[in-house]
Amino acid sequence: MASLETAAAAPALDISWEDRFAQRMQGLTGSVIRELLKITERPEIISFAGGLPAPEVFPLAEIEAATRKVLEEHGAQALQYGATEGYAPLRELLVRHMARYGVKLTPANVLVTTGSQQALDLVGRLFLNPGDHVVTEEPTYLGAIQAWRAYQAEFLTVPADDAGMRVELLEEELRRGPKFVYVLPNFQNPSGATLSSQRRQRLVETANLWGVPIVEDDPYGQLRYEGAHLPPLLALDASLPGHVRAGHAKGGGVIHLGTFSKTLAPGLRVGFIVAPEEVVQRLAQLKQGADLHTSSLCQMVAYETARGGFLDRHVRQIRRVYGQRRDAMLRALERHFPGGVRWTRPQGGLFLWMTLPPHLDSAKLLDESLRDAKVAFIPGTSFFPNGGGRETLRLNFSYCTPELIEEGIGRLAGLIRRHVANAAR
Amino acid sequence: MASLETAAAAPALDISWEDRFAQRMQGLTGSVIRELLKITERPEIISFAGGLPAPEVFPLAEIEAATRKVLEEHGAQALQYGATEGYAPLRELLVRHMARYGVKLTPANVLVTTGSQQALDLVGRLFLNPGDHVVTEEPTYLGAIQAWRAYQAEFLTVPADDAGMRVELLEEELRRGPKFVYVLPNFQNPSGATLSSQRRQRLVETANLWGVPIVEDDPYGQLRYEGAHLPPLLALDASLPGHVRAGHAKGGGVIHLGTFSKTLAPGLRVGFIVAPEEVVQRLAQLKQGADLHTSSLCQMVAYETARGGFLDRHVRQIRRVYGQRRDAMLRALERHFPGGVRWTRPQGGLFLWMTLPPHLDSAKLLDESLRDAKVAFIPGTSFFPNGGGRETLRLNFSYCTPELIEEGIGRLAGLIRRHVANAAR
Repeated sequence: MASLETAAAAPALDISWEDRFAQRMQGLTGSVIRELLKITERPEIISFAGGLPAPEVFPLAEIEAATRKVLEEHGAQALQYGATEGYAPLRELLVRHMARYGVKLTPANVLVTTGSQQALDLVGRLFLNPGDHVVTEEPTYLGAIQAWRAYQAEFLTVPADDAGMRVELLEEELRRGPKFVYVLPNFQNPSGATLSSQRRQRLVETANLWGVPIVEDDPYGQLRYEGAHLPPLLALDASLPGHVRAGHAKGGGVIHLGTFSKTLAPGLRVGFIVAPEEVVQRLAQLKQGADLHTSSLCQMVAYETARGGFLDRHVRQIRRVYGQRRDAMLRALERHFPGGVRWTRPQGGLFLWMTLPPHLDSAKLLDESLRDAKVAFIPGTSFFPNGGGRETLRLNFSYCTPELIEEGIGRLAGLIRRHVANAAR
Repeated sequence: MASLETAAAAPALDISWEDRFAQRMQGLTGSVIRELLKITERPEIISFAGGLPAPEVFPLAEIEAATRKVLEEHGAQALQYGATEGYAPLRELLVRHMARYGVKLTPANVLVTTGSQQALDLVGRLFLNPGDHVVTEEPTYLGAIQAWRAYQAEFLTVPADDAGMRVELLEEELRRGPKFVYVLPNFQNPSGATLSSQRRQRLVETANLWGVPIVEDDPYGQLRYEGAHLPPLLALDASLPGHVRAGHAKGGGVIHLGTFSKTLAPGLRVGFIVAPEEVVQRLAQLKQGADLHTSSLCQMVAYETARGGFLDRHVRQIRRVYGQRRDAMLRALERHFPGGVRWTRPQGGLFLWMTLPPHLDSAKLLDESLRDAKVAFIPGTSFFPNGGGRETLRLNFSYCTPELIEEGIGRLAGLIRRHVANAAR
């Protein structure tokens, strides 16, 4: 009965979930961005804000045909519960796909996820307790910050430049015992930077030496518009063939995240994790508690659309369209923008990164831009887990046509030129 | 630099994620059941184990037509990213649907989830810190135990009988300051019990008095084969119109979970949460970190299939088919089973619950049953968060045809009869 007495003394009323929520969601970045994206749905706004694929490149006819085939030939399976690990033919397709990079896997190394956002969530769920540390590039992907703040992680950041994370500064952060290192090696979101070959090698070696797993997030790797493909960290991680070392002393291991959102369609919500088998097993159990499994219909449609070489052909078309849009944005920036503003020149992906003169605040500029120029972008602060980046912003070039890009960049440049001129006075 | 010194002393190598995982997944219930479900996929096994809808009742033709329409008329939207809160017409349909029970809502009270498993996960994510308490019926739904163990919750259980949770025993547990009370009022999983009208009223009053939210999980409410529909707890919760009281002193509020998995198809992974607006807003932010949003395609297909009265017509068909199967199982049990074995007589849903003579262990019986009788079921222990239920088991009656039910129950009865006879000797 002692427990009952204690219980009676305990507060029956507890509103701390609201406080805890506020704490976990510090900065409310997610809701700010969601509100912003709602504004950008207004037809008069030219939006460089979202990370949306262009609907013109959705393989609609092929997805229609695949869906028809799936429902006609495997309807009961597409509508029924499925294995938490994912649809077997899709996992096998991913194994074949990764083999191109010299990565030898079995389907037991693959977990299908509900978009790669769920992959970030599951990784957090497996590795993070409140107060645990995660190393990221600075700036880094907003969705990862959101996913891991929910587990009350603390972020250790490593500065990045045009060749990605400055890996020579990583060891200092590894001394603090982080649970993993998170990196987007190709056409990083938000910076557009690509991690150089040398740094890839050094990153894998350093993390292995310290026994810290690397979480390699590669949603854009296929979307390269110039230059040669660089090997994924997964391929560089010599420890992988053993499939047993993630999180162990003898090597950190690489957990590789991918998605069909940028190569087929995000509305399917089909992503994947490639990892050592013992990690996949645990992630699968966590996924079972999170959503049982990813939509059978969507997985089967993704597989049926992607297979037989279609995905590769389709990716070539996306590269052409987005490459033109990147070029259009770079040309417009050069034509319209004043001195004192810098931007990156990504070799692929969806985004470039702009740095304004230090006296400008991109969040304030956004209000003005939405009102006067009718142009949207994402202020850079959202991508700095520990603050900073006030004078930076992210521009998406995949969603708007080249004509709209030219128009929108022109309007944005006009606004910024006024501020730069005012400051010079 | 103090922080760097501290950091250097911290262990760079940390394998605790494995220990923590084991701790969170105590009992490994999920993996045991997943392994079991793999066994039951063998064609020679008659499975009463899963909670699978019968593929014969999937509205395949209607889903095919709906999918074609969605892709032809709104293809770009179905393949694009969507709002975290869900597809607006689907949320509106759910508002209309709930209005039948006298519950007045707006779409701001509805969050679409990736199956109702995700709803359980998000509720855990919002309300639970490690060590927090949750009140459940005993036995209770395995998926809820899994979802909340991941947040390291502790379970307080209230015994249940044929009229559901024994609400007169609830107050004792509320004294211990739980974060919410979880209840499946209709055709409970696993017991099949339905919470009586009187107890519903008392449950809502008691929880409101103590300011503890109720999480009402209602996946099966539509699947009633006899008797009159009882009002959902949501409708009884007088506090709802204000939409402001969840988790507050003046009333706990009801968070209602539903799904299309049992009425349309689980492979779509479309569920939903109905809650006060401030709760929905926070859950939406957490969902954004978990998987951004539920598949646009699946939501639009669910909406397009369900609308215009089809869902109601289809539910009537499901009721007819499953009602026959329930009757077939009850008849077979009465015909074949020996004295000393008891079972529930559910008025709806997918499951009934069996209690063997106390000397029998259903987990051991399962091994034997799979080997000799080729019949699968789920041992009851999986549904007891704090242990117990050794002599109980769950039988599903929705998946097998009446003929297979008769055959399987006959075989299972033979096995159990031998054990009962042996014990009597």
